[in-house]
Amino acid sequence: MMFIETQYFQGFFPPHELKLASGETLGPITLAYETYGSLNTDASNAILVCHALSGNARLAHRSAENPDQLGWWDSYVGKGKAIDTDRFFVICINTIGGCSGSTGPSSIDPKTQQPYRLTFPVITIFDMVRSQKALIDHFGIQQLYAVVGGSMGGMQALEWAIQYPELVTRCIPIASTYSLPPQAMAFDAVGRHAITSDEIWKKGQYDSEDSDQMKGLSIARMIGHITYLSDESLKAKFGRKLQEKNDYGYNFDTEFQIESYLKYQGDKFVSRFDANSYLYLTKALSYFDLEKSYGSLENAFQNCRSRFLLIAISSDWIYPPEQSRKIVDVLIGLDKEVAYCQIESSVGHDAFLIHNEVLIGTINGFLES
Amino acid sequence: MMFIETQYFQGFFPPHELKLASGETLGPITLAYETYGSLNTDASNAILVCHALSGNARLAHRSAENPDQLGWWDSYVGKGKAIDTDRFFVICINTIGGCSGSTGPSSIDPKTQQPYRLTFPVITIFDMVRSQKALIDHFGIQQLYAVVGGSMGGMQALEWAIQYPELVTRCIPIASTYSLPPQAMAFDAVGRHAITSDEIWKKGQYDSEDSDQMKGLSIARMIGHITYLSDESLKAKFGRKLQEKNDYGYNFDTEFQIESYLKYQGDKFVSRFDANSYLYLTKALSYFDLEKSYGSLENAFQNCRSRFLLIAISSDWIYPPEQSRKIVDVLIGLDKEVAYCQIESSVGHDAFLIHNEVLIGTINGFLES
Repeated sequence: MMFIETQYFQGFFPPHELKLASGETLGPITLAYETYGSLNTDASNAILVCHALSGNARLAHRSAENPDQLGWWDSYVGKGKAIDTDRFFVICINTIGGCSGSTGPSSIDPKTQQPYRLTFPVITIFDMVRSQKALIDHFGIQQLYAVVGGSMGGMQALEWAIQYPELVTRCIPIASTYSLPPQAMAFDAVGRHAITSDEIWKKGQYDSEDSDQMKGLSIARMIGHITYLSDESLKAKFGRKLQEKNDYGYNFDTEFQIESYLKYQGDKFVSRFDANSYLYLTKALSYFDLEKSYGSLENAFQNCRSRFLLIAISSDWIYPPEQSRKIVDVLIGLDKEVAYCQIESSVGHDAFLIHNEVLIGTINGFLES
Repeated sequence: MMFIETQYFQGFFPPHELKLASGETLGPITLAYETYGSLNTDASNAILVCHALSGNARLAHRSAENPDQLGWWDSYVGKGKAIDTDRFFVICINTIGGCSGSTGPSSIDPKTQQPYRLTFPVITIFDMVRSQKALIDHFGIQQLYAVVGGSMGGMQALEWAIQYPELVTRCIPIASTYSLPPQAMAFDAVGRHAITSDEIWKKGQYDSEDSDQMKGLSIARMIGHITYLSDESLKAKFGRKLQEKNDYGYNFDTEFQIESYLKYQGDKFVSRFDANSYLYLTKALSYFDLEKSYGSLENAFQNCRSRFLLIAISSDWIYPPEQSRKIVDVLIGLDKEVAYCQIESSVGHDAFLIHNEVLIGTINGFLES
């Protein structure tokens, strides 16, 4: 078993800060990343995997510190897996704005020697991609064999194909969209309200030791979590089953298994995620709108040179398949090479994170092609 | 224009308290109610309308205090309307546990002369119905021409038909269910977390003058509100439109119309609704499960003598049509008289609250039959 260490890239030192979509600048920037497999001599076997909202650079394998903890896409990335690390050099970068090693609101602002907190500039999916480009350049990679990502990672994959048409040979957005639908915006906005309403949040100036008490972040996560699962999967997993009892307690304790599960998910998330990062990353999601950014989807994709594989999950109601199909239709209209696969799964949005033979086969087949 | 005043019924004085499903007792109980039209001499023209989670007894007409404010179902109840007050005597009762005049957690407990707050007993839909029965008896009504209700009101209508088979001639549950689905339970549980996490809530002991500052209740309402609307209606109403500007502000202000709308709905709700009532009423929803209460739906409905009209909304994803259809199937299997109507509407769950010609015609036709 190979242990992968998180590595750190530093760039965008003044006066070469990253110019953000907002007009602000950010720099220097640290990118926490992990790589799996080896880059071949002509640097032609690199695959970039972009993570979703709550993800990080720990894509696969066990970690040295927590040998029991698998990476978030371990089912898909490894020796002989869908993305075969015997063959490909796989890179995963924690996004800027995040809280797992890359520069984000909890990082120290070198100008003040204090954490940025809410002085961190608002970032977009476009900014995430442009920061990642520096690391790809650092590796001397002039062609990415593929850019792959689910949910927020899929938005990055699309933005990669648009921004760097020469670089991206294959683009695989999974359970993603060309613009965040209003319903998803609404749930994210309520999540942000929950965080900013929490007394502990203190207008973003919370003490780091208090942050794992932040119920607002827990509530935001619970809301998100419900949207990542389908009603059908909630029925199958929990139904209306009571937690460790046979009859109603007629009180306000946690009584149903679904309540207990959500509370567990909320508490677990608060212990590992930064509340301000949640604000920044959901804001980036809400700004994602390729139609607005490029005038139309046709304009957005017209110069793309990637081969596309769009994948959607049948039971995904928060990033529904019609969003992916609309991208497919536009790409077909533009005479681009595009494949579409709808995974029949009752799990909901999160289906892309768990072992799914059809998804594995589809990604593998497309990479082999 | 006729002005209707809220009236108050008192009953369940000790030692005749209401025995609750929990085994606890509640009494005395005040029921705030309104009536529209006149009871005929043989008391055969009474229709009981049961309100939903955030409703109250103000069913129709303008109120004397707020002549601009219509009742919550004014499109459906009135002279010449679906439920014609020239012909029917229409009764609407604020539910126990609520906060609009009937006994609930913000009422004074006569034993302590303090508000009940969390000493108020946990109530169920069954308890709501049994408390309402006292008022129906008080009017000398031995046959209800119909019991009608949407959402939580539909649960009450079903429980009425089950508990009082001789009394309920027609039963019209709209956008309702035989047991709260896990997804709806999950959203309600998160809403309760948001309330109980609010510093102002103070374990239910909040000062009444602080209650309109309770962001937790606002968050609970925003979550609920999203679930009452369809993704399609959010797209049509708000889409991704910005609020009073043309470009992103790249800050955490309220920027999108959907955000602004949700905040408005949350704030408005907090100014009129009691946080503890929200806890009690959502708890009653989560306990609603006719299969558990009666062993099976067949057992639940076997003694019913009502004619049923089940109405579902095509785009209602939180109380989806299949829930109503399952009730219909069971009633057909039991050889009961039952009609089913699916309203084709893109509005979502809340469609039953707004003017809908098909819904009006369907209810009216069934009442005429």
